[in-house]
Parts: sequence; structure tokens; C-alpha cells
Amino acid sequence: MGAPSLMFQEICEQPAALSATISSLLPRRPEIAGLARDVRAVLFIARGTSDNAAVYGSYLVQVHAGRLASLASPSVATTYGARIDLAGVLAVALSQSGQTEEIVSTLEWAAACGARTLAITNGGAASPLAQAADVALITLAGTELAVPATKTFTTQLAALAVLALALGAPLDAGELAAVPDAVADLLACPPDLSPVVDGLAGVPGVVVSGRGMAYAAALELALKLKEACYLHAMGLSYADLLHGPIAVVDEQTPAVVLAADSGPALAGTVDLARRVRGAGARAYGIGGGPELAAASSAWLPGPGLPEWLAPIGLIVPGQLLTEALARRLGLDPDRPRGLSKVTQTD
Amino acid sequence: MGAPSLMFQEICEQPAALSATISSLLPRRPEIAGLARDVRAVLFIARGTSDNAAVYGSYLVQVHAGRLASLASPSVATTYGARIDLAGVLAVALSQSGQTEEIVSTLEWAAACGARTLAITNGGAASPLAQAADVALITLAGTELAVPATKTFTTQLAALAVLALALGAPLDAGELAAVPDAVADLLACPPDLSPVVDGLAGVPGVVVSGRGMAYAAALELALKLKEACYLHAMGLSYADLLHGPIAVVDEQTPAVVLAADSGPALAGTVDLARRVRGAGARAYGIGGGPELAAASSAWLPGPGLPEWLAPIGLIVPGQLLTEALARRLGLDPDRPRGLSKVTQTD
Repeated sequence: MGAPSLMFQEICEQPAALSATISSLLPRRPEIAGLARDVRAVLFIARGTSDNAAVYGSYLVQVHAGRLASLASPSVATTYGARIDLAGVLAVALSQSGQTEEIVSTLEWAAACGARTLAITNGGAASPLAQAADVALITLAGTELAVPATKTFTTQLAALAVLALALGAPLDAGELAAVPDAVADLLACPPDLSPVVDGLAGVPGVVVSGRGMAYAAALELALKLKEACYLHAMGLSYADLLHGPIAVVDEQTPAVVLAADSGPALAGTVDLARRVRGAGARAYGIGGGPELAAASSAWLPGPGLPEWLAPIGLIVPGQLLTEALARRLGLDPDRPRGLSKVTQTD
Repeated sequence: MGAPSLMFQEICEQPAALSATISSLLPRRPEIAGLARDVRAVLFIARGTSDNAAVYGSYLVQVHAGRLASLASPSVATTYGARIDLAGVLAVALSQSGQTEEIVSTLEWAAACGARTLAITNGGAASPLAQAADVALITLAGTELAVPATKTFTTQLAALAVLALALGAPLDAGELAAVPDAVADLLACPPDLSPVVDGLAGVPGVVVSGRGMAYAAALELALKLKEACYLHAMGLSYADLLHGPIAVVDEQTPAVVLAADSGPALAGTVDLARRVRGAGARAYGIGGGPELAAASSAWLPGPGLPEWLAPIGLIVPGQLLTEALARRLGLDPDRPRGLSKVTQTD
């Protein structure tokens, strides 16, 4: 065994990063509520890992805060220079670095179209994105050195949970404050990853799926497996998987399915795992409690969080799995080929 | 050579299907405009192939009709039963069959939340989806027998072009009326598919990408390759590809990139093809004129349509490619495993 990877170290820093971020942002709910008064829709602006965080934000805002939410197509602003009526819209831009020009310019475009603007970034209050927004929520993940984002992602999710509370979602802020301990518990007793690592080490591709709140964690795990393990990993919602691509699941192409331990999406996810196995493929479960464990070929326990917060913890076994699989494949999880830490697109 | 596949026959029926659909729907613009008076946002409700059509509708509405557009997460309605303020929203549901319960119930949910409702379906005016909507646009693709949707997809795109015109997009309806002839021209002189079929016949996966308007065609081609060829095909936008998954492109994983022959997204797509080849991977171009042809390892000409309509024609070489590749792989393009024509999800 060599020195632990930076990615592994940063995975383990998440309880502290989450604790600092949540303590800092929860008191800012009145300021966010003021910005969002009369807002009828939320437009998320993000790319890559931040886009997966935005999917979580979109479900939270719609399911619990009664507003329409959507993900922007930045090219509408940057490539086409379209003019859209965004009165009554809160534009929420997410960028770990706060430096990505495309995200900054799309947020500026939203403001010019009449939106109010909020930034969520780990880049600090002086970053271009924070400077461009009416209100900036700074996550306190500290410096992240491994290219695959981990603690900057989970702290974004925590900031989005604060946003949902500020928008009036009838949820318990105390449950959010308890998330760092739940993640610490999970890291203190890490699951045995080897059955899943063994199962994924020889396959050309994998499908990663989740329903509702857990879908964001599925998308993020698929991205991690693509980035760090070069796996052909497809993140698909439960329904989209049934609407066609289930044809790609076979003895060489397993599925990983994620679910909260409770909530209305659990039963469908358990059914999905059974259907995958019925098609002759392996289904690896993450979370979902005893029901998903029983339906899975191999299983990693989740964080034991209420459904609305489960994605913050559900991605953690996925991060550990990604890091271990990369090393098993002889890859450096900290420095995937073709990627740099700040991506500029136009 | 055996009998041509149903999929091939239905690809060739597209000029007639498009002509009938466009002639039937263009006169309904005033009715649609009346339904959409005071509408500030459009919410598309769809799954699978119809979801790819919705992506096209989303770009059209935002770039050319000045309204925010978003894709619904049906589970917000069906799994969570959320209540969202949808006043001032036009909900547009797309389903080829008009039978998919999840789509019908999500449209009914949108109406209960205050949205006005439009259906686009090939299932006829008596279908449950058409019955549930304030206004129904019936596509006239005729019966589609092959499981991979072709003519029902392109006629959906045509209906969405009519919607954009009805919403006041300053575009030329005469250009839409000319689409069937452009598709007929392309089918009359089909390109030599063999260099691309040869290149895809032995690979485990492929990335399919496009920017702006062409993104919807890229997503749809990726879905076709997954459904009919069991390829690990990832449909990714230009920017999302650069934000991480470009790591999966290598000598064993080519990219297919699609672009209109003109428009602001072309230059970036040409750059992407060059970057893919710079990473040691092959880039197969579809459309994009001589610039993309020169940047590509092999190339299939597009339809010669203006950018706003290009996806209707750009998918056609992709459909032909899918059908030919499935046969090359010894698969029946008409009956992929694990799929049926009408998919029910909850």
C-alpha cells in the first residue's frame, strides 16, 4: 500500500467541510428569502459535477418548495445570445472554482434578462462568480487538489438544502445540521467495497440509476466512474432506463442503483434492481436499506439520512468505490487523463 | 441481402410523414398562439425519444421565442405528488403512442397546478394524451412498427417547429415547409455509411455530441445506438464533454459529432472534432459542411437545412447508420431485446 490518494483524503475531510459550510450558511436563510421574494421559478446554471448538484437542487425546490425549477442550457446565453423574459426567476449558478467564464457570463446574462441571482461557489467571496451575483453562498470545503470533485460537491448539496429551507420548504433544519455526523459515521465504519470493486473491474460499462432525490447522486457517481476509472458509465433515471437503454444491461454490463433508506422512490428502485437481475445482469445497491440489499447482487449501506438529505451521504460510498476501483485498475484517481481542475468552455 | 428492415422502410417514409404533418399543423398556429397568450415559460413532459424531441423544443423556444423552457421530472408529479405554481406556464407533453400513463398523469398534474396544456402525439385525437390536453397536435407519421422510433421522432420535431412559430419566433414557415424535400433529397442519394459502420462495429462505446440546436439530434442518435446496437453510447453536449467525460475518448472509444451546416454552434463543434482526434480518438462527423468534414476521420453529409430546422434532417444519416450497424452486428434493428413499443413507467 502506498500513500493514500488525495481523493481519499478529501473524501475523509467531508464531515468537517460539511459542518463548516452548514454552520456558515444556515444563518443566511433570511437574506436568501429576501432575495427570492415573489420568485416563481428557479433556474440553475452549472456544468459537470455542479450540474449534478443542480439536479438535486431542482428536485428539492420542486418537491419541497413549490416552485418550478430548471437547468439552464448555457449555450442559449453564450452561443446564441438569446433574450428571454426572466422576471420572477431566481438564477442560481454553481461553480466550485467560481472561475468558469461560461457560468459567470450565463449568470450575468440571466441578470440582464431580469432574474435575481445567487452564486454557490467554493472559490471565495472574491471569485468572479461570487462578485457577479446579488447574493453569494460560499462553501467552506477548503482547497480540493484531486481532480475528481468530492467535498466541493457535497458542500454544494448542503448549500442547496439551505436554499430550499430559505424558500420555505417545510423541512427540519436540524436534520441538515446532523448530516456531518452521519457522514462521519459512515466513514468511520467503511463498507467492504471489494465485492463491488471486483464486479466492476472487468466490465466495459455500467449503468448508474436512481429515482427522484437519489437521481442526482446516481448522475454524480456515473460522472466519477467516467472521470477516474474511464468506465462507460451511464447515469440514467429509473424511468429513462426503462424507456430504452435497459437493452444495454447484460451479463457484461451491471447496474448500480442508489436509493434513500425511505421515501416514495424506494419501492421503484427495488423493483428496478430486481428487473436488472431478471435481465441476467448484476445489480449493485447503494443505500435503500434492507429492501434494496435483499434485491441486490452486492450492496453498500447508505448514510441513514432522511430522504431529502440522502444524496449528500449516498454519494460517499460511491466516492470510495470510485477511488478504490481506479487504484485496482492501475489508474491514479487524483489525475485522470484529459482533465484539469478548472474547465473553461465557451 | 434479405428483405429491408421495417426500420429502414420507416426511415424512408419520413418525407411523406413530415409533409402530411407540417401541412396539417401549420394552419393551427393561431389556435396555439391563443392557448399560449401571456405564457412566460414552457414545460416539456416526455420520456425516451420524446425527451430528445423536447430538448429540441427547449432550444427553439428559448433561442427563438424568448421564453424560458424546461424539461419536467415526471417523478416530481407522479412519485412525490408535489404542488407547484404553474400559472403562466404552457405544459407540452410528447408521447408517440399517446398512451404512456406517466406522461398523461404528469400533464394532468400540470393542469391542476395552473398550467395550460398542449399534447403532441402520433396516437390520434382519441388517445388519452390528446384527450387530456387543452390543444392536441397530432403528428401524421402513420403506424410505426420497428421498435426504434424514426418517423414518429422527426414528425415530433416538426410539430415543435410549428409551436415555436406560433409562439412568435421570427422564423420563416416556408423553410419548415421545405424540410420534407430536403429529407427526400438526402434519402435519394444516401451517403456511403461503410467507413463509419466499420469504425463502430468493433468498439465497446462511443460518445455522441452536438452543441445548441444539434444537441437534440446527438442525444437521439446516442439513444438509437443504445437501443438497436447495444453500444455504450453517451449523448453529451459539447461543454459537458469537455467538463469531464472527455477522459473516456480514446483509440477504442470514438466520438460522433453532429452540427448544422451553419450557425453559431458550428465553430465549436469543429474544434471539438479536432480535440477528439488530438486525444488519439476518431471523430465521425455528421453535417457541419466542409469544415466539419475536414476535421473528421470520416464524415456523412447533413441535410442542408437552416440551423433551426437542421436536427430534423441531421438525425436521418444517424438513423441509417444505426440500422446498418445493427445488421452488421447481426442484430435485428426492428426488435431490440428488452424493449416494447409502448413503455409504461410509474
